[in-house]
Amino acid sequence: MTNRPLILISNDDGVNAKGISVLTDVMKEFGDIVVVAPDSAMSGMSSALTSETPLMVTKVSEDESCTIYSCNGTPVDCVKLGFNELLDRKPDYVVSGINHGANSSISVIYSGTVGAALEGCVHGVPSIAFSLCSHNVDADFSFSTTWIRKIFRQLISNGIPKYTCLNINIPDGEIKGTEVCRQGLGVWKNEMEKRTDPRGRDYYWLTGNFENMESRAEDTDLNALDQNRISIVPIKIDMTDMEVIENIKSWNI
Amino acid sequence: MTNRPLILISNDDGVNAKGISVLTDVMKEFGDIVVVAPDSAMSGMSSALTSETPLMVTKVSEDESCTIYSCNGTPVDCVKLGFNELLDRKPDYVVSGINHGANSSISVIYSGTVGAALEGCVHGVPSIAFSLCSHNVDADFSFSTTWIRKIFRQLISNGIPKYTCLNINIPDGEIKGTEVCRQGLGVWKNEMEKRTDPRGRDYYWLTGNFENMESRAEDTDLNALDQNRISIVPIKIDMTDMEVIENIKSWNI
Repeated sequence: MTNRPLILISNDDGVNAKGISVLTDVMKEFGDIVVVAPDSAMSGMSSALTSETPLMVTKVSEDESCTIYSCNGTPVDCVKLGFNELLDRKPDYVVSGINHGANSSISVIYSGTVGAALEGCVHGVPSIAFSLCSHNVDADFSFSTTWIRKIFRQLISNGIPKYTCLNINIPDGEIKGTEVCRQGLGVWKNEMEKRTDPRGRDYYWLTGNFENMESRAEDTDLNALDQNRISIVPIKIDMTDMEVIENIKSWNI
Repeated sequence: MTNRPLILISNDDGVNAKGISVLTDVMKEFGDIVVVAPDSAMSGMSSALTSETPLMVTKVSEDESCTIYSCNGTPVDCVKLGFNELLDRKPDYVVSGINHGANSSISVIYSGTVGAALEGCVHGVPSIAFSLCSHNVDADFSFSTTWIRKIFRQLISNGIPKYTCLNINIPDGEIKGTEVCRQGLGVWKNEMEKRTDPRGRDYYWLTGNFENMESRAEDTDLNALDQNRISIVPIKIDMTDMEVIENIKSWNI
């Protein structure tokens, strides 16, 4: 390894996804790379970690400036393995993605891509998650890379407070700029599709229709994406609702 | 079902854990119960959901005021199944736990018990997660039940803003009262234990030592628990770091 910045990359679509390959190529311009990514799709894994079964790691490839590992764990497991075992020093940045599919609004709490970036900032390192609003496995990332470079350059220049990371969502197709905004409020409706198996037993597939609950708000990630703008949302690991604390202190317990 | 409140209960230790059984018994005093819980241990599953495989549900037992289902999914899957399929109406409360082990500080983002409560408030229902600071499968919950009643009664009386839920941690043993507080900052160190299998291949177990990064702060859940007080932390699904937004708007993108 050289004295260039060391960048730990992960994702939740798995080590073979197109998105992480595009991201790795962009990040090579900024530093030396270690990829630690799930060996299979881990979408919707949130900040899940593996405590009941052992983690196995495979070195997929290695050259002077880029080493790629796959792991049988979650995105958070991958980042923890990077910090604790696989990297020879603390990385300068943790970068996650590029996710195939949006991680805006409430998806933040379910996303493994966001989970990996949150785990980077749990370890006190500037971290950033990138997602493209297309679930296509062969999605066109060509419009996004220029913007990823711009945003990452600013992260390097300006830094970000410890224990906060950036959640970036990129429109699919033409991009009209960026918007620094907050996580919009949205919910999934009709989330389960019930089917019957050949033996007459019910089973369920997770599905759903997304509903923007603040469609008139202009300061949300959902609105930015509707306007074909990249949404930049700083998110933090402290989930405390400080505004409610005083109210609950008045409870009679 | 009667016109008593309908309470959806889940956890992450699984449907057979002692903690959920104790919680169900307490909650029966407040309403009719539907338990939907994982069929196996799902600790550390955060807000993970299952999108790649189907969900199977088994009715474990049913009487007039309490129906218990197990499911092969995560805690969040269980709550989603409750809302979308298994309950005949929207529940009045979602209650999660009692977890075997603390879910204070940074554990909030990894906890499936907390994930289930967050999912309740995603659906706009007052929700609460209970955890006991003991990993013992046969933990003594007898000190905790009086306090769970007190806290739940206050939740019923006072309500809680939509999209915010309560994360409750209960000391193991003597309890000296409650403290409404914020999520403390702590980190896990030495998180991986490397071993070698009989064929010479490395593998890793998740482990670690927890470090309180704010040991002098008096307003954290960690401090409350150190003082043998129950910690009551309101947490919200909006992870936006509002304090950083203006700063990032000045970036030159």
